[in-house]
Amino acid sequence: MKNYITHSEWQVVEEGFVPNYNRISESLFSIANGHTGQRANFEENYSGDSLQGNYMAGVYYPDKTRVGWWKNGYPEYFAKILNAANWIGLRIRLDGEELDLAKADVADFVRVLDMRTALLTRKFTATMPSGKKIEVVAERFLSIADKEIGAIRYRLKSINFTGALGLCSYIDGDIRNEDSNYDEKFWTETDKFTTENQAFLCMETKKTSFFVCHGVQTHLYVNGAMVNAARHPYQDEKFVANTFELPLVAGDEICIEKYMAVNSSLYQPQDELMDHVKAKLAEAVASGFDKLFEAHSQKWAKRWQTADIMVQGDVAAQQGIRFNIFQLMQTYSGDDERLNIGPKGFTGEKYGGVTYWDTEAYCLPFFMATAPQLIAKNLLLYRHKHLLKAIENAAKLGFTGGAALYPMVTINGEECHNEWEITFEEIHRNGAIAYAIYNYVNYTGDRDYLAPYGFEVLLGISRFWAQRVNWSDDKNAYVMLGVTGPNEYENNVNNNFHTNRMAVWTLKYTMEVIDFVKKEHPYLFSELTRKWAFNEQGETEQWRDIVENMHFPYDSKREIFLQQDGFLDKEIIPAADLDPAERPIHQNWSWDRILRSCYIKQADTLQSFYWFRHDFDQETLRRHFDFYEPITVHESSLSSCIHAILAARIGREEKAYEMYLRTARLDLDDYNNDTEDGLHVTSMGGTWLAFVETFGGLDVKDGQLLLNPFLPKSWEAFAFRINFRGAHLEIRMGSEFKITNHSELAVDVVVWGEQHQLKENGELVLAKKSVVQ
Amino acid sequence: MKNYITHSEWQVVEEGFVPNYNRISESLFSIANGHTGQRANFEENYSGDSLQGNYMAGVYYPDKTRVGWWKNGYPEYFAKILNAANWIGLRIRLDGEELDLAKADVADFVRVLDMRTALLTRKFTATMPSGKKIEVVAERFLSIADKEIGAIRYRLKSINFTGALGLCSYIDGDIRNEDSNYDEKFWTETDKFTTENQAFLCMETKKTSFFVCHGVQTHLYVNGAMVNAARHPYQDEKFVANTFELPLVAGDEICIEKYMAVNSSLYQPQDELMDHVKAKLAEAVASGFDKLFEAHSQKWAKRWQTADIMVQGDVAAQQGIRFNIFQLMQTYSGDDERLNIGPKGFTGEKYGGVTYWDTEAYCLPFFMATAPQLIAKNLLLYRHKHLLKAIENAAKLGFTGGAALYPMVTINGEECHNEWEITFEEIHRNGAIAYAIYNYVNYTGDRDYLAPYGFEVLLGISRFWAQRVNWSDDKNAYVMLGVTGPNEYENNVNNNFHTNRMAVWTLKYTMEVIDFVKKEHPYLFSELTRKWAFNEQGETEQWRDIVENMHFPYDSKREIFLQQDGFLDKEIIPAADLDPAERPIHQNWSWDRILRSCYIKQADTLQSFYWFRHDFDQETLRRHFDFYEPITVHESSLSSCIHAILAARIGREEKAYEMYLRTARLDLDDYNNDTEDGLHVTSMGGTWLAFVETFGGLDVKDGQLLLNPFLPKSWEAFAFRINFRGAHLEIRMGSEFKITNHSELAVDVVVWGEQHQLKENGELVLAKKSVVQ
Repeated sequence: MKNYITHSEWQVVEEGFVPNYNRISESLFSIANGHTGQRANFEENYSGDSLQGNYMAGVYYPDKTRVGWWKNGYPEYFAKILNAANWIGLRIRLDGEELDLAKADVADFVRVLDMRTALLTRKFTATMPSGKKIEVVAERFLSIADKEIGAIRYRLKSINFTGALGLCSYIDGDIRNEDSNYDEKFWTETDKFTTENQAFLCMETKKTSFFVCHGVQTHLYVNGAMVNAARHPYQDEKFVANTFELPLVAGDEICIEKYMAVNSSLYQPQDELMDHVKAKLAEAVASGFDKLFEAHSQKWAKRWQTADIMVQGDVAAQQGIRFNIFQLMQTYSGDDERLNIGPKGFTGEKYGGVTYWDTEAYCLPFFMATAPQLIAKNLLLYRHKHLLKAIENAAKLGFTGGAALYPMVTINGEECHNEWEITFEEIHRNGAIAYAIYNYVNYTGDRDYLAPYGFEVLLGISRFWAQRVNWSDDKNAYVMLGVTGPNEYENNVNNNFHTNRMAVWTLKYTMEVIDFVKKEHPYLFSELTRKWAFNEQGETEQWRDIVENMHFPYDSKREIFLQQDGFLDKEIIPAADLDPAERPIHQNWSWDRILRSCYIKQADTLQSFYWFRHDFDQETLRRHFDFYEPITVHESSLSSCIHAILAARIGREEKAYEMYLRTARLDLDDYNNDTEDGLHVTSMGGTWLAFVETFGGLDVKDGQLLLNPFLPKSWEAFAFRINFRGAHLEIRMGSEFKITNHSELAVDVVVWGEQHQLKENGELVLAKKSVVQ
Repeated sequence: MKNYITHSEWQVVEEGFVPNYNRISESLFSIANGHTGQRANFEENYSGDSLQGNYMAGVYYPDKTRVGWWKNGYPEYFAKILNAANWIGLRIRLDGEELDLAKADVADFVRVLDMRTALLTRKFTATMPSGKKIEVVAERFLSIADKEIGAIRYRLKSINFTGALGLCSYIDGDIRNEDSNYDEKFWTETDKFTTENQAFLCMETKKTSFFVCHGVQTHLYVNGAMVNAARHPYQDEKFVANTFELPLVAGDEICIEKYMAVNSSLYQPQDELMDHVKAKLAEAVASGFDKLFEAHSQKWAKRWQTADIMVQGDVAAQQGIRFNIFQLMQTYSGDDERLNIGPKGFTGEKYGGVTYWDTEAYCLPFFMATAPQLIAKNLLLYRHKHLLKAIENAAKLGFTGGAALYPMVTINGEECHNEWEITFEEIHRNGAIAYAIYNYVNYTGDRDYLAPYGFEVLLGISRFWAQRVNWSDDKNAYVMLGVTGPNEYENNVNNNFHTNRMAVWTLKYTMEVIDFVKKEHPYLFSELTRKWAFNEQGETEQWRDIVENMHFPYDSKREIFLQQDGFLDKEIIPAADLDPAERPIHQNWSWDRILRSCYIKQADTLQSFYWFRHDFDQETLRRHFDFYEPITVHESSLSSCIHAILAARIGREEKAYEMYLRTARLDLDDYNNDTEDGLHVTSMGGTWLAFVETFGGLDVKDGQLLLNPFLPKSWEAFAFRINFRGAHLEIRMGSEFKITNHSELAVDVVVWGEQHQLKENGELVLAKKSVVQ
């Protein structure tokens, strides 16, 4: 855990330059616009430790799988969003001496990410080894008003230097993924073009043949006046640049404006790509930095208007929740259903920028509640589009008859994870994808999603579960062998409670959906029945048999469901009793020791208690929480959020607050010592969830909005906003509780168990009350 | 399965050249002398598919581990015996046209490996693309009379060619391991030297700094007369050669003799290595091919005298058993306790030539019974020497206080396997190493091994077991969680019967050994107690508690021990019912499907029934055999041998014979479609075991030799020889049963349950009888 980020309500601030933390800051100060994103690398050359990172959503490469020993069924490749051309580069030389913060004496260093406007600013004074001293203020943003545009304003003042300034503004396409499995390069150059102040570089990905074109135009001002003298284009292999040479006198201020336009063959025909980028760049240059930034800021303001969460009286908590919301918004804009949310967003290479169950389980609710409904729907459609691939994936593992197993890791619907215990066995993800359909329909009320899309995905998944279980004569019940639950500190276990629960629930829900579609969309139902060769009677009969006869490991002494068969053979020792020097255990214990220990990485049995909250009473939840939470080490970034919510539900306010802070400031405080790899973007959806469900007690049941708010002791007030079935509500908890309906739609709402009607544009004010036990 | 090897009692014969089978033949016709070995590559250049392979025992490289996702505790490297310099090379050019069997028209091709003398012979007629026609007879051996010597006699007759013969006799050190993890080269050149007909090349391994020097001297005869004209040495990077040019007339016969000497820094000081090799080469040349071969043949004859097994009436079975014995003898000579037996011997790169539990479980008995006792003892000492490393290995996994976990894969005592389910969990190997001590002492009667060596190894292993189990309140017993048994088609199971059995047995045996050492070697015992901080009372009290309270999964309905907890939740379907197109399942089923199936790769529960045969009655064995064998797919090369023995014990003669043939001809008939990777050398120990225990019914109990012979229906007779506690016995079963004592020592022997005394140099003849049920 680190504590070097200054607490601030709307900003992430690093004061003073610590080279050892540079990779962490590069992650924390990342900027993105849903289509392209980058780590907070320096514009000028930096020879210190750094991960240069620029990523384009959807532009991936199938890197040859690396394993120790091949297992039958492993995917051939691991897809990764590629590290793409670096367009921010500005090499600066004073009388030939290069500006490099790894070699200079750096003072007054400040790095600021303004979350309101996604502007990255960096200021410093550098004294070069020769004694030359300059001041720099660099600003940069990637426009969300026009996703193809980015801009840099880099101001440099000479304090004591008089001499020749050399400047090279470049695009470098000779990029290698740091996590390449076999040290290969994944890009080839296809085209380039330069003028005196423009440079264009078109690159193609190997194998996948994505074409990406970047263009930059660089303007140089000295003491406010644009200068055009001594400009020269420069080209090299996978490299284009514009160079500038000019005399500088101590006290001079120069300003470099660098405009960037980018697009890819995802959106433009390959042969028109460079022309398109040229035109787009001309547009950007015509607008100028300030106007571009204004349009961008306005769009951000609009986003914050519906998505912001306010905390009064706790700057750390305020900064934490805004940082999480900010990252979610800049990572995924939801305007292209081919895209999804990588665990690290655009902030690093780990996990390859590909899609996990994180999206459905942790991110979907945020987008449902704070963004236009289409955005959440696009997240579901992403999986619907991959249904045939999921059926292929299942067939590779021996399943038949349209059974669908969605991949653990994917970019185009094919599985590309290469650990058998995850790929082949962590199949609860299939349930999470089914649950997301339920969750979306339950929250939005959009039952129209079911007939054309939801039903066939549910059918494929249900068919998978029906084949994946087998009858055990010994137990006189259905069992599910050889799975890995959400707790990845177990592998290849039998009858994981959560996975068995997901299977049974999916079968039940699918049958409900079938009844609905049959009744409401009979024509479509008969079409779908034919299309999928669905034997309704035969298949549902088997499903019902499984639903009724599934085995769930249970301890009748403790009256708890067991995470898996044999769980009680373990030595149960509270995590609090572990030697702190051995935490986190995944960095200190050998894998076998972790596996046979009782320690749980993240909610597993409790994940079912979270999702199926309406099926368990509070006392049952309390028993399970008290058994499982003390042996949970929360070493997954996805753990604290669910535990915060559950703690709140059983009235453990302090535990809830502790768990909440841990998820909210996970990256800002580098809790897990891994922020340098990138941010835990998908777990940030969990943070939002934790906020609104822990402190707001938000829930939806039978179409009804439920709230059960509580205010942590150290806070003065909090407020958040949600879209709910056409209404837009502002929920505020302070000295009193207040809901404001910012819409023309009346809404019923249950607060602390009591029903209220909230008129169109109306308000509801209630006296504060503690959580109902 | 293939059937292209001609059946012959003493030879392996390939008639006709099939390029597609070349890699298989390269494995099958491999030759070795315990210190150096090579695949049966061609001397002349061959551009077709081939794995050039030359290996030196003990000369290894720690290749950087390759895994998909790193687990804490993985070893940094995977050690591999390196593919070393190729010294057999003879390039042959006729008027500049190269002899290359991939490009020539090949007729009358015969490859013969004479098992009596380990001579590799190859004959063929080649018509080159231009029409030039030649006949070749090539002979090669690696001397077992002098382990540093090899020789080639290569006779070439021109049928129709008159013109210039160009010959290049070389050593090529620019060798890459085909299985290198990162495509690196592991050798650097340190020295080289050439004369007109000699070439020397010294190479060093990277990281491990083993030095190896090869020297060759080449003589050329035309029509029987040595020619010295036009000889030129040639040197290049990692390459030395002697070239010869001479005119050839149709009908001419040339003969090339190439003598090789080799040694390494394992045996000679690095700076004297080349001089040593020069002197050794001079010796070899002075002897000449025929005399060298004679000494070599005499030594082989001596080996066969004690180790041969004769089968009458079944050439396939005769060839099979001799091939297995031959390979065992040429792989391991037992004269250096730093060496061991790699799963592929010197015949390929797979498994890296490193040591597995195969040695203790399958190879030890062969060497105990057919070779001087020191050789078997050296196999035990290999592990004794690694005890401290085994304690280190255990410490890396969190064990303390001198607990020892021997590695799954090793060359120098460090673990170097990189699959967690094997490395960390397949811990029954530790039991196999303990069992080998028992087995050795039980067979040889050499109790003197226990105090100075056996005890401390047993102590370390027992300490490991004592920590590896844990108490389960739920079961009110000790349990062992998260293991992989010998059946590698299961991973991370709880309470594997065999592993639990090994643990309990080790603890019991260690306590017996403690009592013996304490009584017979009290001084040494007190020294060892101090050395290992052994708290006899406290530790043995805990061991006794474990022995008495260990959990063994049991099904009371079927009255069988279960392979692991929950085994009966699986669908039990006989392997015979599987679709033959899906066999072997490890090549057709995804890994998860295999794991959750009931199918067993090799004896697991039955391995305990094999080792602890005196603890179970025949009826119990029969029940277990009838439950487990039908669901065993025998996809491990180590499976059939154990099942043959057990089948014989319960009177299933046909099953025993079927299983025996499968192990005996595994490689000759390429049963598993993988002989091209190399031979299953360690499983050949299992074949020997299967022979003497299946057909001979050999056993030793309380120092008494037991025999329970049966003659398969299709055989006329069989005979084998064993050393037993100073006696040398020949056991023959034909129309009558006969034991001949070729020693001065009288021996008691129990045949078919009846005790007999066999006088010094005496004979025992009994009428044939069927196996006692």
